[in-house]
Amino acid sequence: MGGMAVKKVGRGTYKQQISDDLRQQIADGTLAPGAKLPTEAQLTDEYGVTRGTVRAALDILVNEGLIVSKRPVGYFVRERKPMVFRPQAEFRPRPYTPEMDAFMTEHQGRDPEQTIEVSIAEPTAEVAKRLQLKAGQLVVARRRVRYLDGEPFNINDSFFPLDLVRDTPIMRPESIAEGANEVLASLGYRQVRAIDELYVRMPTPDEVRRLELAPGTPIGYHVCTGYTEEGKPVRVAITVLPGDRHVISYERRRETPADES
Amino acid sequence: MGGMAVKKVGRGTYKQQISDDLRQQIADGTLAPGAKLPTEAQLTDEYGVTRGTVRAALDILVNEGLIVSKRPVGYFVRERKPMVFRPQAEFRPRPYTPEMDAFMTEHQGRDPEQTIEVSIAEPTAEVAKRLQLKAGQLVVARRRVRYLDGEPFNINDSFFPLDLVRDTPIMRPESIAEGANEVLASLGYRQVRAIDELYVRMPTPDEVRRLELAPGTPIGYHVCTGYTEEGKPVRVAITVLPGDRHVISYERRRETPADES
Repeated sequence: MGGMAVKKVGRGTYKQQISDDLRQQIADGTLAPGAKLPTEAQLTDEYGVTRGTVRAALDILVNEGLIVSKRPVGYFVRERKPMVFRPQAEFRPRPYTPEMDAFMTEHQGRDPEQTIEVSIAEPTAEVAKRLQLKAGQLVVARRRVRYLDGEPFNINDSFFPLDLVRDTPIMRPESIAEGANEVLASLGYRQVRAIDELYVRMPTPDEVRRLELAPGTPIGYHVCTGYTEEGKPVRVAITVLPGDRHVISYERRRETPADES
Repeated sequence: MGGMAVKKVGRGTYKQQISDDLRQQIADGTLAPGAKLPTEAQLTDEYGVTRGTVRAALDILVNEGLIVSKRPVGYFVRERKPMVFRPQAEFRPRPYTPEMDAFMTEHQGRDPEQTIEVSIAEPTAEVAKRLQLKAGQLVVARRRVRYLDGEPFNINDSFFPLDLVRDTPIMRPESIAEGANEVLASLGYRQVRAIDELYVRMPTPDEVRRLELAPGTPIGYHVCTGYTEEGKPVRVAITVLPGDRHVISYERRRETPADES
């Protein structure tokens, strides 16, 4: 059994060495977006391995969304046009620094389309904790998938305590013209602060399905909790951002003494 | 050849179904941190597959840093104590909201140790662009690996235009008591604004080596560019955050009219 384990690690190493080398070249720009990769035959010669090992190595990179296969021509570095996810847009629609203006212009704001499903649901432990719900309290879940050029780009699911938003536009399965945050404000729950948490991990099967992901594509998992002036949490928004399609961006500035007060 | 391809996808599907199911249970807390997974024999029975397929499925999760093998007892969900990475700490050492105070307390600030290497280097295209360097301009690179309890936790590499920091403490391979930002400020380059960009991807071989990563662990790749009041970029800091060890967090608040001015 020990022998088998060693053999397996050995095979994994060849395959991974090839995919690692290519990934490095993609990461540092040696292989630029749109560039053609060496052919399978070239890689087979270069590494002295079987065609099957080369294909397994290329499969890893296809799976991570880094390259695409265009048969019969070959493999190409995927052209990434990452979408900017800017959590701060919620409280500050327009950038306040010339640097962020330039960054946004370079990445061109594209407006996504979306699908919306609304349900009344038991909160997950994760949502219940952040909304400080008691056992048995339900939430309204607004689940959206956003599309860009027909491709699913990200998941944005928002959760509200049912007690707060019953019979409001937040419960209708359609876009809210003024935004859910304005509805909450009109109910007396204006959000003035938020905590963002961002986790990096591999996708779950549900995320793979909703986002049509290759299962080797890692995701950013962004949890935003919005608070009223009194510190009451009134909304949790969970955004799932496939790593191959996004850059997440913030602008910051040094606090002045006035800001600190 | 078509037949072989189909067979391969078929095998991949069984293995992935098992790892997907377990990953989902870990993600939603059904399998809590520290929990013991079903045994290989139980999974073999449950899915009606070979022991080899079950092991391959478990290997995927080990590789992603989600579970650990404790032979001969079995597999366990890894106990994750994520470290908080808070980019805003640079301009605002203390949180300004009670929510962030609570969040930080829950996650306990732990002070990392670090190794430091300083070099004069050609900038990568990525760094040169952000520092607006001309061809031939060199940078000072301060490369750090931060350790927590002896385990490498993240990479933090900072890059400064050589012209600005020649013969300053920034060039010494040791901790800078007052911080590199204060050194820059004393030279007349006080950073008052920053742009953060965060990318999510699989690690490169160099990152795997420096962070002792399992190669299936995705990373957050955080690029911070710091600007002076005049909009001159004077520092790029690149932090590589293994997804299995970090949560990245920001606090935000609604702008008041005074802030907008």
